[in-house]
Amino acid sequence: MKALVYHSPGKRSWDDVPRPALQSASDAIVRVDAVTICGTDLHILKGDVPAVDPGRILGHEAVGTVEEVGAGVLGIKRGDRVLVSCISACGRCRYCRTGGYGQCLGGGGWVLGHRIDGTQAEYVRVPFADTSTHLLAPGVSDEAALMLADILPTSYEVGVLNGQVSPGDTVVVVGAGPIGLAAIMTAQLFSPGHIVAVDLAEPRLQAAKQFGADITVSATDDPEAVVAEVTGGLGADVVVEAVGVPESFELCARLVRPGGRLANIGVHGKPATLHLEDLWIRDITITTGLVDTRSTPTLLRMLTTGQLDATRFITHRFPLGEVEAAYDVFSRPQETGALKVVLARG
Amino acid sequence: MKALVYHSPGKRSWDDVPRPALQSASDAIVRVDAVTICGTDLHILKGDVPAVDPGRILGHEAVGTVEEVGAGVLGIKRGDRVLVSCISACGRCRYCRTGGYGQCLGGGGWVLGHRIDGTQAEYVRVPFADTSTHLLAPGVSDEAALMLADILPTSYEVGVLNGQVSPGDTVVVVGAGPIGLAAIMTAQLFSPGHIVAVDLAEPRLQAAKQFGADITVSATDDPEAVVAEVTGGLGADVVVEAVGVPESFELCARLVRPGGRLANIGVHGKPATLHLEDLWIRDITITTGLVDTRSTPTLLRMLTTGQLDATRFITHRFPLGEVEAAYDVFSRPQETGALKVVLARG
Repeated sequence: MKALVYHSPGKRSWDDVPRPALQSASDAIVRVDAVTICGTDLHILKGDVPAVDPGRILGHEAVGTVEEVGAGVLGIKRGDRVLVSCISACGRCRYCRTGGYGQCLGGGGWVLGHRIDGTQAEYVRVPFADTSTHLLAPGVSDEAALMLADILPTSYEVGVLNGQVSPGDTVVVVGAGPIGLAAIMTAQLFSPGHIVAVDLAEPRLQAAKQFGADITVSATDDPEAVVAEVTGGLGADVVVEAVGVPESFELCARLVRPGGRLANIGVHGKPATLHLEDLWIRDITITTGLVDTRSTPTLLRMLTTGQLDATRFITHRFPLGEVEAAYDVFSRPQETGALKVVLARG
Repeated sequence: MKALVYHSPGKRSWDDVPRPALQSASDAIVRVDAVTICGTDLHILKGDVPAVDPGRILGHEAVGTVEEVGAGVLGIKRGDRVLVSCISACGRCRYCRTGGYGQCLGGGGWVLGHRIDGTQAEYVRVPFADTSTHLLAPGVSDEAALMLADILPTSYEVGVLNGQVSPGDTVVVVGAGPIGLAAIMTAQLFSPGHIVAVDLAEPRLQAAKQFGADITVSATDDPEAVVAEVTGGLGADVVVEAVGVPESFELCARLVRPGGRLANIGVHGKPATLHLEDLWIRDITITTGLVDTRSTPTLLRMLTTGQLDATRFITHRFPLGEVEAAYDVFSRPQETGALKVVLARG
């Protein structure tokens, strides 16, 4: 079969590789019908994720059709259409038993396209298939479901739910890439009073408006003054970090009101300065997290009820065989306007 | 009357000053029957709290007898025995209306001995008296109640409740001074599996054992190894910071397990480094806070039921007139073994 293989920093190709086979009774082999590329894949290609070995097939998001299941898989069968989640879950460990699938101690967590071969391929082996896939209802399109493999549950759980967005809140989202936009979209489920989007790029601020931000401000203007004006000088109830650099995190900590919440979604490569000399007295809650995907069943229901229009993130479509062209488009969002790209089986 | 007056960094004296008078209809004048000294008073005397003006009477913890109340005070009357809380609450602002008294926007919060004259005096004016004092039941001693003016609600709310200590948890308390010991004492209300105390001073680790820690470790040994051994390598469910220096906070962040909680109580004067490059993926919750004293009614009930033995913190007793000697003892805990000192009206 064909697959997108990581060779070394900066180097990837669409190679001929062996088709995956069942390795455990809990595995499934899934034929990939639609797959996407994540910002994390670009991090891997920069060499920022040393756990990824050369030869690894990338990708951790897919929708596909079950080809074959191990003897222990009872919830899905050959021919079923499934969402392959970015988080695999053993279902048995201390974390999985309490819904903390992202921290799975039994060999799951974020493993696809990271520690085992991933989804940017014609077929993928999914471990712990019963607890790592979601059966799709007939009314849910491949493209809509694909947006629930990672970005929507990530922004919803790690941003909106960890930040405890509540009715009437002033919510600031710093970073209006796909993850920030998904936070803006899902924050609206809790009826905040204002959503303020902060970014450096004007096209992203335009996108933020389209996704529901009612105020946008460039990070190079004065986001603190804008938030102060909206909140009577108090600061935001919830600030969501969706960039992943120290400057952005530190801006978030200045924007939050006493008693407010700072929910970090950004993938960070460096430490930040935490100004405890100001914050110790301010009743701040800071959260970090990898998605657990425990919200995925709920988000899937909201696709069928029409409460979420997940396909709005998709700006570009390619046949699966053109994955290298898709990487080129996705890695230059400033020029191409790419948010999410979809690669579909012909 | 006599009062302990702050003059400049390092300089305080027991001076003759005018007796306070009612300034507002919501004020009460309280005769001080018992008062204590807080670590924060020592910070003020070092010049660390620039909001404290020369001439300020220090102290934010007292038990006393109501002498006089303004026309708007309905809940207490002359002759009542009351706890004067470290937090004054206007009762009307956005924060007070939701129990966030520590962040009061209406002129309350931590004001006594800070922005207005405090309790280390023969009499004190208490603003917003209805919502800033607590009537004392006859069975509650002055000394026991006095420990509920600050340290017990602080450690309970900002450490134990913010940290969400739960049955079976491994709880680490870094810093075994009075605040850390109060966290150890009140953490036990939630039946943790293990309480590990970390400090530099052996006498404090001994005190931690007496207050209920089952494991103690010097900060200069290897607290990470000890916590790893207790938790099967996972890390602590809850870590409470009760020191207030960057090194201690950073140690706490290394001790907490994925999905765990770091509750900062320490009063910090400098920023700390937050290792987001490790923490972004670990589902950590970090909280900071000033006490709201919303737990004070509950803690008072627990004094009467015998669930809390608050007088255990008291190591030294003085007549009120010997407050300067009391400061000397309290400021040298390594030599004197002082935890809390009580000054009582003769």
